[in-house]
Amino acid sequence: MDDLNIPFEQLVDGLQKVLEKYGMEESRARRCAILFAQADLDGVYSHGVNRFFTFLDYITNDWVKLDREPELLSQLGVFERWDGRFGVGNLNAEFAMGRAIELSREFGIGCIALKNTNHWMRAGNFGWQAVEAGCIGICFTNTIANMAAWGGSEPKIGNNPLVVAIPRKEGPVVLDMAMSQFAYGKMSIAESKNEQMPFAAGFDDKGKLTTDPSTILKNRLALPVGLWKGSGLSLVLDMLSALLSGGNATNKVNDMGTEIGLSQVFISIDPDKLALLEWMDQKADEIINDLKSSTSFDGKTVRYPGESSLETRNRNLKNGVPISKSLWEKIQNEAK
Amino acid sequence: MDDLNIPFEQLVDGLQKVLEKYGMEESRARRCAILFAQADLDGVYSHGVNRFFTFLDYITNDWVKLDREPELLSQLGVFERWDGRFGVGNLNAEFAMGRAIELSREFGIGCIALKNTNHWMRAGNFGWQAVEAGCIGICFTNTIANMAAWGGSEPKIGNNPLVVAIPRKEGPVVLDMAMSQFAYGKMSIAESKNEQMPFAAGFDDKGKLTTDPSTILKNRLALPVGLWKGSGLSLVLDMLSALLSGGNATNKVNDMGTEIGLSQVFISIDPDKLALLEWMDQKADEIINDLKSSTSFDGKTVRYPGESSLETRNRNLKNGVPISKSLWEKIQNEAK
Repeated sequence: MDDLNIPFEQLVDGLQKVLEKYGMEESRARRCAILFAQADLDGVYSHGVNRFFTFLDYITNDWVKLDREPELLSQLGVFERWDGRFGVGNLNAEFAMGRAIELSREFGIGCIALKNTNHWMRAGNFGWQAVEAGCIGICFTNTIANMAAWGGSEPKIGNNPLVVAIPRKEGPVVLDMAMSQFAYGKMSIAESKNEQMPFAAGFDDKGKLTTDPSTILKNRLALPVGLWKGSGLSLVLDMLSALLSGGNATNKVNDMGTEIGLSQVFISIDPDKLALLEWMDQKADEIINDLKSSTSFDGKTVRYPGESSLETRNRNLKNGVPISKSLWEKIQNEAK
Repeated sequence: MDDLNIPFEQLVDGLQKVLEKYGMEESRARRCAILFAQADLDGVYSHGVNRFFTFLDYITNDWVKLDREPELLSQLGVFERWDGRFGVGNLNAEFAMGRAIELSREFGIGCIALKNTNHWMRAGNFGWQAVEAGCIGICFTNTIANMAAWGGSEPKIGNNPLVVAIPRKEGPVVLDMAMSQFAYGKMSIAESKNEQMPFAAGFDDKGKLTTDPSTILKNRLALPVGLWKGSGLSLVLDMLSALLSGGNATNKVNDMGTEIGLSQVFISIDPDKLALLEWMDQKADEIINDLKSSTSFDGKTVRYPGESSLETRNRNLKNGVPISKSLWEKIQNEAK
C-alpha cells in the first residue's frame, strides 16, 4: 500500500476541517476528529479514518444528526439513562463514558445506559478513556444482525463489541472484542487477496464451518466466538443494552434498514474511591508477569490485550500515522 | 447408565444428612444440599451430585472449612468486599449474590467482590437466584490455570465461568459459560467412549488445534472460546475478580496446589428500582421471539441460554432427578 506517515496532530486537523465544513461546531469537530484519528494512531485501521467518508455519508443522509447532544432521561445514584438522539456515535460514547467516570468518582461505580445512539467506531477508545482517568472501564454496544444464532441459518444476532479496560502503570489491559471470530472488514481484505482465513470464520450455506471469506461475505454467517457460547454472549449483551437503556435491540435496529439507533452501556469503577489502590498495581503486575512468563509454541512472548496498541501508538506518535496516500488526498480535498 | 429417578426433595434430604454427618449445621447443610441437587435438577450433571464426594474430600482435607461464614471487609454504597474465609463455595456464593440483590433493592445496582472462597460448583445457580428475585444477575469466578494463553504452550489462565442472567416471565435467559470451548469433564466422557470432540477442543503438543480429548486431558491445553478472544476475556475476568476483591488471581490459586482460595464477583441490577419494568418484558419477549423465528440448518428451533435448563427442571420435578444407582447407594450409605 502506498502509505504516508502523517503526524497525529496534522491528521486530526485535517479531519476536523472536514467536519467543520459539514457544519459541526468547532470543539465537537475537534473531539470527533481525535476519536477517528486515535483508532489509526493505535493501529486499529479498520475503525478509524478508513470509515470517515462512510460516516460523512451518514451525516449527508441525515442518519447521523451532527449537532445533537445526549439528553438525560432518568437518574438514580450510580445509574443514569440517556437518549443519544441519533447524534454522533463516537461523541455520544465519549460523553457517556465520561459521565460514568464522574459517577464512579462519587459512588465508586457508575453506569450509563444510552439509547438512540450511532456507531461508536473504535470500541477500544472508550476503554482507553477510562484507564487514562485511572478507572476500570467496561462498555458494550449492540449492532445490526450480522451473525446467525447457534443453529440458525440467517443473521439474527449482532457481533456486539465488548470492552474491558483495566488501568496499570506499566501499560493498561484493554480488551476490545467483537463477538465474531473475524470482522467482515478483515474477511474483505482476505477475499481481495484471494486468501482463506487462518481459522474457521463462518458457516457455508449448508451450515458447515468454513474459512472461505467470499462465502461468508455473501451469506453474512460470520462465526460467533466459541460457537454456541459467543452466540449466547452476543444475545445477552444485546438484551442488557436494550433493556437497561430502553432503546432498540438488534431486531429493531434491523428494522431501521441501516445501522442506526443503537443501544450501549458504559460502566466505570474508580479503584481510588473503592480503596483498591493498595494492591491494584502489584496484583496487576503479578498477573501480567505470570502470563508473559509462559512458554510458547513459537518462542515468542505471550501478549496481553492492549499491549500492541500501546506499542503502535508510541511508534506512530514518533513516525506519523500510516494513511494511504489517496485517502489523505481525499481528506485534504474535502477540507478545502 | 443405570439411572434411578429420585424425587428432588428426597435427593436433597439424602445429601443434607451426609453433610450433617460431616459436621455441617442443619440449615447450612440444607442450603448446600439444595445447591448441589439443583444442578442435577436443571440437567447440569457435571457440576452437581457427581462432584459431591470430591467436595467431601475437600472438607476432610480441611481445604474447605465447613462452618466458616463470610466476613465483611469494606463497604461503600453499592459495593462491598467480603472475605469467604475458605468456607463452603456454593454457600458463600449464594450469600454473596443474595447480598448483591439486597444492595440492588436499595441502590438499583449492587456489587459484591468475594475473596478467599472456594469452588461454587454450578455457576448458573447464582444467575437463577437473581432472576428468581426479579433481578438481572451477573457473576464470574476465577479458577486454577487450565488453559494456555493465546500463543502459550502451558496452562496459565483459568476457564473462569461467567454468568449473565436476565429475568423474563416466559422463562429467563441464563447464560452460564466457561471460557473453555469444552469442559474437561466432557472431554473425559468422550475419551472413555473413545470419541473425538465435535469441534476443535484444544491444542496438541505442537500447538495445532485438535479434537482429541486424550491429548488435551494430558497436556491441559483446552481451547479458549474464540481463540485469542476468549484468552483475553479469561484474563480480564481473572483481573477483575482479584483486583476488586483483593484476593488471589489465577497465578496465586496455582500456588495453592489445589483449587482453593478463589476470587469472585457478583452483580445484581434491580429493574424495578431502576424503573425499567415498563418495557422489560415486552422487549425481552420481542428479542427472544425474533431469535426463535430464525430459519435453521436442521429444521429445529433456535434456543436461548437457559431454555433447556427450565425444560429439564420441569421434567425432573415431575419424573425425579436422574442419578446413577451406584452414586445414590453411596449417598445413602454415607448418610447412615
